[in-house]
Amino acid sequence: MPNVENVTSKRVMVVGGDGYCGWATALHLSRLGYEITIVDNLIRRHWDATHLLDSLIPIAPIDRRIAAWQRSSGKTIGLQLIDVREYAPLAAAIESFRPDTIVHFGQQRSAPFSMIDREHTVLTQVGNLTGTLNILYAMRDIVPNAHLVKLGTMGEYGTPNIDIEEGYIEIEHNGRKDVLPYPKQPGSFYHLSKVHDSDNIAFASRVWNLRATDLNQGVVYGLSEETAGHPDLANRFDYDALFGTVLNRFCVEAVAGHPLTVYGAGGQTRSFIDLRDTVACLELSIANPPAPGRLQVFNQFTEICSVFELAERVQRVARARGIACTIEHRENPRIEREAHYYKAKNTSLLGLGLQPHLLDDRTIETMLDIAATHRGRISPALIPPHVGWDARAFEATTNDESAVAHATS
Amino acid sequence: MPNVENVTSKRVMVVGGDGYCGWATALHLSRLGYEITIVDNLIRRHWDATHLLDSLIPIAPIDRRIAAWQRSSGKTIGLQLIDVREYAPLAAAIESFRPDTIVHFGQQRSAPFSMIDREHTVLTQVGNLTGTLNILYAMRDIVPNAHLVKLGTMGEYGTPNIDIEEGYIEIEHNGRKDVLPYPKQPGSFYHLSKVHDSDNIAFASRVWNLRATDLNQGVVYGLSEETAGHPDLANRFDYDALFGTVLNRFCVEAVAGHPLTVYGAGGQTRSFIDLRDTVACLELSIANPPAPGRLQVFNQFTEICSVFELAERVQRVARARGIACTIEHRENPRIEREAHYYKAKNTSLLGLGLQPHLLDDRTIETMLDIAATHRGRISPALIPPHVGWDARAFEATTNDESAVAHATS
Repeated sequence: MPNVENVTSKRVMVVGGDGYCGWATALHLSRLGYEITIVDNLIRRHWDATHLLDSLIPIAPIDRRIAAWQRSSGKTIGLQLIDVREYAPLAAAIESFRPDTIVHFGQQRSAPFSMIDREHTVLTQVGNLTGTLNILYAMRDIVPNAHLVKLGTMGEYGTPNIDIEEGYIEIEHNGRKDVLPYPKQPGSFYHLSKVHDSDNIAFASRVWNLRATDLNQGVVYGLSEETAGHPDLANRFDYDALFGTVLNRFCVEAVAGHPLTVYGAGGQTRSFIDLRDTVACLELSIANPPAPGRLQVFNQFTEICSVFELAERVQRVARARGIACTIEHRENPRIEREAHYYKAKNTSLLGLGLQPHLLDDRTIETMLDIAATHRGRISPALIPPHVGWDARAFEATTNDESAVAHATS
Repeated sequence: MPNVENVTSKRVMVVGGDGYCGWATALHLSRLGYEITIVDNLIRRHWDATHLLDSLIPIAPIDRRIAAWQRSSGKTIGLQLIDVREYAPLAAAIESFRPDTIVHFGQQRSAPFSMIDREHTVLTQVGNLTGTLNILYAMRDIVPNAHLVKLGTMGEYGTPNIDIEEGYIEIEHNGRKDVLPYPKQPGSFYHLSKVHDSDNIAFASRVWNLRATDLNQGVVYGLSEETAGHPDLANRFDYDALFGTVLNRFCVEAVAGHPLTVYGAGGQTRSFIDLRDTVACLELSIANPPAPGRLQVFNQFTEICSVFELAERVQRVARARGIACTIEHRENPRIEREAHYYKAKNTSLLGLGLQPHLLDDRTIETMLDIAATHRGRISPALIPPHVGWDARAFEATTNDESAVAHATS
């Protein structure tokens, strides 16, 4: 772990610092002594509003969040309310803050959102790609020695029938060998946007001799420690069909007396990470920049589990606490393998010192408690999926309950 | 080869049909009996104008081109002057023409253009990606049984130290096997845009059960047969630093009494194809659509050669015709390997019946004749590269001649 004494002069720009991972990371790094500026356009709050969604845990406006952190920690966090899809304000912010590290979470990050329709696909891919290109050009021209730490996703790899490595794979073919980028099979237009970014960043690192780290993160759950001190520091907790992640959703379903809904067979196997480990991974990545020129890739997860196994774990913990809890299979809105091989490597961050918070009963209990605390804010209508990967097929067979729920949500 | 009798009712939309490959393809397919509609926004002509460039061979406006074809062949070609980055006009054109095949050449296709600056990078990637996404959505919603034939590039693969396969590679790793997308290492933001497209098309084919073929084309040279009949049918012939391809440029340099300029060591080895074979490959691809659901990938080239070998071949043929001709090395504006392994597979199109026009002396003589015919239109100032992959480094060391040439071109 980096010595705080050595990092107090380090400036980190957290793009997307108002989001779930971004806010947790900004506070964690601020507590460690990094000088933090958040760059965010607050578009996620707008999307919540226009899609009639809301975080289960109420979140304060960004200025109140930052003021609360100042009061509780004595630390100042800077704020630039700009859109990284526009170059001029981004360049001005980088010119004035001169970050040592740019952490980039500032993207549309929902697979279902990217699959709603053509407009949402284009918005996701064009927006994510343009923001990253703008950051790369700003680094080249303004802060060429800075380190880009970019959030990718384990979903870039898909579910190949061979072991997943960290970014690169040595291939022997017709008697010759090379180490090449790991082949990607992303499962949505959102995941594709992250693959496009990875390819663009790898190229820019090479030709402009930049330092960059790509963090292929698993499915995140839970809450980090720094957001617990005051209601105005609270982090978002998404359980809805667009932005909710699966474990958060299961906990909300259990507390709401709703079956845990497994889409398809549930053999979809994914990698997972506790948000407390996410912030630790960011801390480790920032402290360990690569040499310039070659994109560094870390797989950022701590354990692997199928969706059905995850539902069973939540069910067991919920029942032990006296919550009646059933598991039901529903039609899968995604087109994906529901039974497949899955083994992925995650040794880099462990080797740098990550101490995982594995998903134990205590963590699930804490999440059930969070859901129970905010029980009155649970809107069951937000849970059923309404975006199918093949839009027409899914709409044609979806049940009336979820169709009505969406119409009235 | 497809039987013309069987294809007379086949409708092919040629997106980018006013360009070098697109115009040649439109005429070739029209001659074979396909019903052709060209979709083009004529932006390439605008870029020529704004970058002070021009084709060596003068080209007629698109309406005169089509009228000349009507007079010489008796065949009608439709025209829609629309921009595929805008969905509504594209959808209307597809709705009214109802193509059986959509051939997609309608993209920014120059690597140096994509590297000029941030604006040109974003224009290239956002434009290319949006156009392809729009076409995929229009296929899904309007012509789900149509076949997309998309121009990719061999440059998507880069120069790996193992053999290049056609789109996919079987990988054995830790005792398990899978057939995965071939790992890509593209060498410019333009080439990256084609990789992004390939990934998007593969995904859309899978989840929407579309038919699509990706043609990874080598460096094209020469002229096709159908454009020879009348000056108004003539195809463009680019030799400038932005859009010129290397063999065309060498032939122009030879005729202009300019050294053949090899950038760097010249050991850069690439795949090549005669434009007469390009149009035959399009014909074969259209006649052989894949089953829906899995992107079909063909490598579209006929031979492999290093840039220096190519210069030597042009020099030999030029000298035999009494043209004094030297070869000079110049600083390489690109960041690329100048000596490397290169072996790529191209058996699919050969297996479908492609009869290659290999690069023999006769072909080079014909190209030298073309350059000589239009000698008076050669502008030597357009030849030296002015866009470096590391912009600052290249500008700092470029010689005065090319700097002045660009300023006054």
